[in-house]
This record gives sequence, C-alpha cells and structure tokens, in this order.
Amino acid sequence: MDDLAKKTLLYDFYGDMLTDRQRDIFEAYYLNDLSLGEIAEELLISRAGVHDNLKRSEKALVNYETKLKLIDRYLDNKKIMLQILAMTENNDENVIGDIRKIITEFIKNM
Amino acid sequence: MDDLAKKTLLYDFYGDMLTDRQRDIFEAYYLNDLSLGEIAEELLISRAGVHDNLKRSEKALVNYETKLKLIDRYLDNKKIMLQILAMTENNDENVIGDIRKIITEFIKNM
Repeated sequence: MDDLAKKTLLYDFYGDMLTDRQRDIFEAYYLNDLSLGEIAEELLISRAGVHDNLKRSEKALVNYETKLKLIDRYLDNKKIMLQILAMTENNDENVIGDIRKIITEFIKNM
Repeated sequence: MDDLAKKTLLYDFYGDMLTDRQRDIFEAYYLNDLSLGEIAEELLISRAGVHDNLKRSEKALVNYETKLKLIDRYLDNKKIMLQILAMTENNDENVIGDIRKIITEFIKNM
C-alpha cells in the first residue's frame, strides 16, 4: 500500500476523532489534492500552519491505530470472511462443519 | 446492562486510549473495587482529585464510543456470527446459500 493509500485508510477509520478544522485541512490536502499554499490562502493562515496541522493529524491517526488496531483487525476479519465466502461457492455440504469451526473461533477472538 | 457493566465494556474497548495514570485509577476503582479514599491515600492525592480523574476518563471513553461506535458494531457483528453459527447446526446443505448471502452483506458493511 502506498503512503497516500495508508493515510486515507487511517482517515477512513479514525477521521471522526479529529477536530473539524483538522478534518477540513486533511481532506483539502489528501482527498481534494489542494496545495499547502492554496489551503493557507483559503484559511488565512501560513503555509507552515497548514503543514503543522497536517502533521499533527497524521500523528494522531497513527497513534489511534497503534492503540486500537482497527485497520489490522479489519484486514484480518475481511480475510476470514472471504475465506468463508469461497467455501460456500460449490454448495458442498461438507464445508458446513468447517464454516462452523471458523465462525466459532472468530467469535472467540472478537 | 447495568452502569458498571457499561463502564467496564467501554474500558475493554478504549482503555488503551487513556493515560497510564487514568488506567491505574479506573482499574483500582471499577475493577478492584477500592474506594476513592483508598486510592487517594495510595497516590497521595485528594479524594476530589481521584474523583475528577475518574470523571474525565469516563467522559473520554464515552466520547470514543460516540465517535468510533466499536461496541455498537461489535454487538451487531456478534449477533450476525451467532446467527450463522445457529444455521450450521443441522448440517443442512440448504443453508449454504443463505450463509453466502449473509457473509456477502457482512463484507459490504465492514
């Protein structure tokens, strides 16, 4: 995953934890591709102010993932669900016992 | 769910977001059932200081759930997984298509 993809994934999961101001600047820069200068002009602050705000937001987002690991868990869970989905593809009743085992383990780890 | 159960569930999900100090006080009070006075004595601070610290922690935990809704989602997800588990109980191949539908929807909403 490239750096931008990582940042937008972090933002998807933890963006609600930022302030409105941090969200506005993060979206302007990373999602709408505005430059630091354009954002600074729009908000009547310095380019350095925009830059500092972005860095603080990124640090906060990384910190949330370090503590809560929602993205890690999401990727793990998705893998398990896709595995079950693949198992159901052939309508073979022999898979039911295996699905049962996987779901039981999944619930235990929730 | 009673108030204590709610608070410990919030702590399970978001306790890592608190400071070490907040965690120590929260655990002493809610998990180890020490009194405000006992905690105050132990930490050489006032009872009011312990009380304020607890209130700030509780407010932070509720705030995290308001923003991230991890507990809400956990309870919803658990319900779905238990539903699939129940469907696998009779080893009836007719359930495979339904499991497939539920998992597909689940992945979409992840």
